[in-house]
Amino acid sequence: MGNKVFNIAIVGATGAVGQKIMDILQEKDFPIGTLKLLSSERSAGKKIIWNDREITVEVAKSDSFSGIDIAFFSAGGEVSRKLAPEAVKQGAIVIDNTSAYRMNKNVPLIVPEVNSDHLNNHQGIIANPNCSTIQMAVALKPIKEAFGLNRIVVSTYQAVSGAGRQAEKELETQTKQYIQEEEMVAETLPVRSDEKHFPIAFNALPQIDVFEENGFTAEEMKMIQETKKIFNDQTMSIAATCVRLPIVTSHSESIYIETDQEKVSVAQIREVLEKAEGVVLQDDPSTQTYPTPLDATNKEPIFVGRVRKDLDNEQGFHMWVVGDNLMKGAALNTVQIAQSLIENKLV
Amino acid sequence: MGNKVFNIAIVGATGAVGQKIMDILQEKDFPIGTLKLLSSERSAGKKIIWNDREITVEVAKSDSFSGIDIAFFSAGGEVSRKLAPEAVKQGAIVIDNTSAYRMNKNVPLIVPEVNSDHLNNHQGIIANPNCSTIQMAVALKPIKEAFGLNRIVVSTYQAVSGAGRQAEKELETQTKQYIQEEEMVAETLPVRSDEKHFPIAFNALPQIDVFEENGFTAEEMKMIQETKKIFNDQTMSIAATCVRLPIVTSHSESIYIETDQEKVSVAQIREVLEKAEGVVLQDDPSTQTYPTPLDATNKEPIFVGRVRKDLDNEQGFHMWVVGDNLMKGAALNTVQIAQSLIENKLV
Repeated sequence: MGNKVFNIAIVGATGAVGQKIMDILQEKDFPIGTLKLLSSERSAGKKIIWNDREITVEVAKSDSFSGIDIAFFSAGGEVSRKLAPEAVKQGAIVIDNTSAYRMNKNVPLIVPEVNSDHLNNHQGIIANPNCSTIQMAVALKPIKEAFGLNRIVVSTYQAVSGAGRQAEKELETQTKQYIQEEEMVAETLPVRSDEKHFPIAFNALPQIDVFEENGFTAEEMKMIQETKKIFNDQTMSIAATCVRLPIVTSHSESIYIETDQEKVSVAQIREVLEKAEGVVLQDDPSTQTYPTPLDATNKEPIFVGRVRKDLDNEQGFHMWVVGDNLMKGAALNTVQIAQSLIENKLV
Repeated sequence: MGNKVFNIAIVGATGAVGQKIMDILQEKDFPIGTLKLLSSERSAGKKIIWNDREITVEVAKSDSFSGIDIAFFSAGGEVSRKLAPEAVKQGAIVIDNTSAYRMNKNVPLIVPEVNSDHLNNHQGIIANPNCSTIQMAVALKPIKEAFGLNRIVVSTYQAVSGAGRQAEKELETQTKQYIQEEEMVAETLPVRSDEKHFPIAFNALPQIDVFEENGFTAEEMKMIQETKKIFNDQTMSIAATCVRLPIVTSHSESIYIETDQEKVSVAQIREVLEKAEGVVLQDDPSTQTYPTPLDATNKEPIFVGRVRKDLDNEQGFHMWVVGDNLMKGAALNTVQIAQSLIENKLV
């Protein structure tokens, strides 16, 4: 990266993902000139210590981006829709962590291990995919590349932190209420703005995000549409069922795939996963080795285990994929997109 | 049922399923003459009040079954293997809730709503399927009957009570430890006799029962093999991924199916489910209506929701199936088998 430094802004700096981005920028010794922390009026004025610098959080406004090279957006879709074009006008490249621009044709949707080549065509805004999409794409990329992939059926086991800090708090409060045999109060999940709320503690909610007309949830549609876009393959058949569970951090996914090639073995699948960027294979039934969300939390890679061939379909395989939804599922991937831009001299 | 009464024995009377069987026998006003409660030496001598009778628990022995018409076995596979043949010799019909005889060719494996006709060929022992198998079979029966069914891919979300009272206790203890920021102690799950144990609180364990040579777990193989046997159809392609979660009671299942018939609509699937025995359809995205394990607990039916057509496969459908693993998944189905025997004058 040479000695060049970059002026960075983080919109949503006081949120869970914003803070993780700051941690990762520091850990990875990201070449930063100015670091500007932006938020809503509610959090503005707060002082944050980052890498021995004291930084005062400012209100994110249309004119906040002058002199900024890269702006990380993680303050909800509405803020991104309003301010991202302004940031681009002022010369910044926006890496957006919301769903606002993901399906926009002019916006590359990037998982660096999978499709960093799509960055070449960026027009100022680059989108970070949904957490559950990212970990599936990382795990399936090496398999698709080696053997072809035409069918995905995925069922997710998603953590509450994906729904924000309020959801995390609600799980904690409800857990205590349940243990003390009090009634559980539900106000946040499955979707705060929806009419009904259900307890998540000791429960499973088959709704993440709002329902669409076709009966799928927005979360399920994100997994389907974003995966096709990332792989630049509209012919893949993909279906998802997304479920929220009483887990704090790290999403798990039970994934069924069908390869194009015949006569692929489990050993071959394991081999390509073992060599793949961003993947750690944890797969040995004889020693009960497989990934779990508790183990994956605060770690960078996507963990894959339980790889096995379908008993009734020679081209069918099953696997269990776990990743920290705040790390690779959000903040880490966002920072890696920025690193990719720098490596490819696109910023 | 007329005025005839039946002498009943429950082996494993002090266990979670044994107690549920007693509750259900009372609720359903089962025509009981003698009720004999049997257990291991550890629990023998205990006095239990049932339907205003005080019954002393006796040690289950080879000669415990004289005069018994129906013996419910729910004390583990080893006890069933040892004592069930003895009970049959003494004239009892055994309804076995363990996996000991399920795949035995001479033993019918029964979900009354699905295959009560298989009871006609019984030779003394009748097997109750695995909890996760039962709820899937109840939900898929009407669909298979109406439209044919050639493919099932299921991912489960299973409660700890399926692993016994010790597992329930472990979830409770670990939850308290987690909240108090103490280290969680794991001794029971995923499998008590296995070498490694992992915390279940705020976690997901992709292992239920021991691993088999082919990389599937015994629980997954039960779902595959038992379903084929219940439907008497070895040509169905079935695959399962079974996962234990921090849920006390009721299993959920994300099920993908492919019908034989083309041009089946979601409305048609819902229609046959609505009319099906043992099924309650809870499926209206517009009002956030879908089943959850907390809601299904202590209820008799199997609840089905989230029915939708695959976006890339005209014959593919997804659904979310929830049932109380101790009720229909175990005790209730066991009692229903006994009722079926009586209705069909097979006892």
